[in-house]
Amino acid sequence: MNNEFFKVFSSIFDEVQWSTSESELYRHSHDESDHPSLAPELVFFPETKQDVVDIMNLSRKYDVPLTPFGAGSGLEGQAIPLHKGISINFERMNKILTFSPQDMLVTVQPGITRLQLNSFINKHGLYFPIDPGADASIGGMTATNASGTTAVRYGSMRDQLLDLEVVLADGKTIHTGTKAKKSSSGLHLTGLFAGSEGTLGLITEVTLKLHGIPEQTIAASCNFSTPQQCAEAAHAILLSGIPVMRMEFVDACSIKQVNIYGKYQLPEEHSLFFEFAGMTKTVEEETALAQSIIGEMHGFNWKVASDSIERAILWKARHELSYAYRHVQGMAASGGDVCAPISKLPELVAYARELIVASELTGGIFGHVGDGNFHTIIMYEAFNDEDSQKARNINDQLALRAIELEGTCTGEHGVGIGKIKYQEAEHGVAYEVMKNLKVFFDPENRLNPGKIFS
Amino acid sequence: MNNEFFKVFSSIFDEVQWSTSESELYRHSHDESDHPSLAPELVFFPETKQDVVDIMNLSRKYDVPLTPFGAGSGLEGQAIPLHKGISINFERMNKILTFSPQDMLVTVQPGITRLQLNSFINKHGLYFPIDPGADASIGGMTATNASGTTAVRYGSMRDQLLDLEVVLADGKTIHTGTKAKKSSSGLHLTGLFAGSEGTLGLITEVTLKLHGIPEQTIAASCNFSTPQQCAEAAHAILLSGIPVMRMEFVDACSIKQVNIYGKYQLPEEHSLFFEFAGMTKTVEEETALAQSIIGEMHGFNWKVASDSIERAILWKARHELSYAYRHVQGMAASGGDVCAPISKLPELVAYARELIVASELTGGIFGHVGDGNFHTIIMYEAFNDEDSQKARNINDQLALRAIELEGTCTGEHGVGIGKIKYQEAEHGVAYEVMKNLKVFFDPENRLNPGKIFS
Repeated sequence: MNNEFFKVFSSIFDEVQWSTSESELYRHSHDESDHPSLAPELVFFPETKQDVVDIMNLSRKYDVPLTPFGAGSGLEGQAIPLHKGISINFERMNKILTFSPQDMLVTVQPGITRLQLNSFINKHGLYFPIDPGADASIGGMTATNASGTTAVRYGSMRDQLLDLEVVLADGKTIHTGTKAKKSSSGLHLTGLFAGSEGTLGLITEVTLKLHGIPEQTIAASCNFSTPQQCAEAAHAILLSGIPVMRMEFVDACSIKQVNIYGKYQLPEEHSLFFEFAGMTKTVEEETALAQSIIGEMHGFNWKVASDSIERAILWKARHELSYAYRHVQGMAASGGDVCAPISKLPELVAYARELIVASELTGGIFGHVGDGNFHTIIMYEAFNDEDSQKARNINDQLALRAIELEGTCTGEHGVGIGKIKYQEAEHGVAYEVMKNLKVFFDPENRLNPGKIFS
Repeated sequence: MNNEFFKVFSSIFDEVQWSTSESELYRHSHDESDHPSLAPELVFFPETKQDVVDIMNLSRKYDVPLTPFGAGSGLEGQAIPLHKGISINFERMNKILTFSPQDMLVTVQPGITRLQLNSFINKHGLYFPIDPGADASIGGMTATNASGTTAVRYGSMRDQLLDLEVVLADGKTIHTGTKAKKSSSGLHLTGLFAGSEGTLGLITEVTLKLHGIPEQTIAASCNFSTPQQCAEAAHAILLSGIPVMRMEFVDACSIKQVNIYGKYQLPEEHSLFFEFAGMTKTVEEETALAQSIIGEMHGFNWKVASDSIERAILWKARHELSYAYRHVQGMAASGGDVCAPISKLPELVAYARELIVASELTGGIFGHVGDGNFHTIIMYEAFNDEDSQKARNINDQLALRAIELEGTCTGEHGVGIGKIKYQEAEHGVAYEVMKNLKVFFDPENRLNPGKIFS
């Protein structure tokens, strides 16, 4: 970033639109992961699409790398500006552009967070169901193809997108889709930009499908003697055809951790958490069927929470799980995010536990078993290189085993910095095609350089 | 296709694997549309992935265009070999490669048809729900991103894919995904190849999600005084949150046509056809709610068919609709396939009827109103150029109006030959990106040349 760039940049943008203050540079140097932080040279706050086009054109002219920043809640370092340059923080582009309750559609700017969006649309009886836990920005969720606890019913972000507006590296703006609920026209660019982590273009608008708030919601939890029994029971529920809204596995070690963190009194056993949602009688029928399956699969402590406060407490505990590990004084945490065919889940969960035990570190296993996706979080003393390396080794071995089992190294966190090393193993020759596509869209490698592609 | 090519080709492939017989050339010269037929020079029947790699390599060496052929049931001329060369008929690559009922997944070769697939998996309590009407091949359905009557619940083909094996123009083979139910790893190539109509590569394997056969299924139908009332009622049902399995609109003119074709005795009124499916009590609750909504929305003749024979007759009529128009002696038929946001549907349906009335031709309107997708079929005297032009004009005006209303020129038939002319209007600058992607994957334009891109 040379002086000439800065002269032109500061002549175009008012100083309220950018910052080089230490606190802002620090805020944009890291995300929620333990990847080493690195500060940008400047933080830019676009307010309009034209601002994004302008910064793209300047980036091209003066060869300045651009790294988009949503809410900073990523878990693979996607927002860390590895090649320095400019962090583009979208928080001021957080408007709802068009809302069509009739069509159950909304078009938003990328900086709006999922809770901001829901607080606006909920009063119309609609909601946006994708829930990665953190109050992530819609742009960030799109860029990483986020999902979370409701993916078992609604899929990932990619499944909820109808259209993206994207500013390309050459400064041109495209729309990748339309507002029709389905289309067989042209090539599917929407799916390509979703999950591309800002490496192919900058997203300036997102059109999302919305869903009706279910008439009735029931939460339930139960315990099992082993993680494998949990996985097997989850599998039996899926085969029964119950369209669960959420189905989460949490191992006993993680329950202990969250009890300490949030002063909960959950039974410290391997657990499944459920949510059933829909029309009243339907949900009652589903809950009863689930209970009987859980009984057959050796579950115990079946507990139903149908009032909204009890339900909220239960799910708050689940959402805080990651923080319970990540925010322990003096400790760092390293997380895995494998996803495999459901039938391989018992084997993969058992393997994860073996690795943790062998490492002699403390770590938990929990995740979205309905999708075959689960996380490991391994705690280690901050700045203890040996333990940090041990934690990373667990991630490596688990990711490679997931790939061997025809699964993926990342179910929902994305590739970012940490999962580049598994791309070749997972995608084979297709990774070459992906690399060439990166060059196709961003020949000078200025868009979030160092992510997905090394 | 020169002699040298043929010498090498026939030295590699036994003559049972190819044909130049008139009947085979004719069979591969057309699909179900009224696009002018054109025969290939040779039809090739690959039996293995290696056969496809070999033909790809020969095609490159001798500059021979390749056009994939599934079941020939396409409606936009995708299988017509516009640049002649070789038609690749996948009907012998119709094996189920791996079937995992535990994971509700199946991996198949592209030539298997959806009924062949279902007849195998249904006995395990599973089914593949995408239903375009015709017994299309899974490869063809993938290549055109087909959908049909169940899209309102299950989306399009693209939504049901986990992995594709694709042979690229350079002869390399890639896998675009894994068998994990979700992934945030790498760029999303699966979605890109789905709907690319054989213009980017040749699909040799498809991994599909399967679904449990619902415990109970109820079909229902009802009538309305105007098409607009049908669209409004469909819209009200969607907003109620009932997860309908199918919701189809058929106008009175089309009911008349199918009554003649199939000797049915359906009331010749504007109609909605429904299917509700799931657990028993759930389905009963949904059906009752739908009935009361239909009553409020001025529907009449509500009729429920809960036994399987009655239900089959009702849906057989709906499936035969297209044939009822397309297979009238001495007549040809031209079809539209627009899709728009649901709120625009009443306006778009009314516009379609106006256009048909103004043309003085006979035509029907019917489709998948739950998605905002509907078809027009206009009949005209075969070889009557003036009427054929009138029919095409209707398609043009309707497609452009759908695009104006933020919809698409094709909800499910694909672009093929007939919808290239709307691509610029629908995709704008993004069409340039798509054209460049075509060059990226197929620089010599040998893969289904003349489709999607002119």
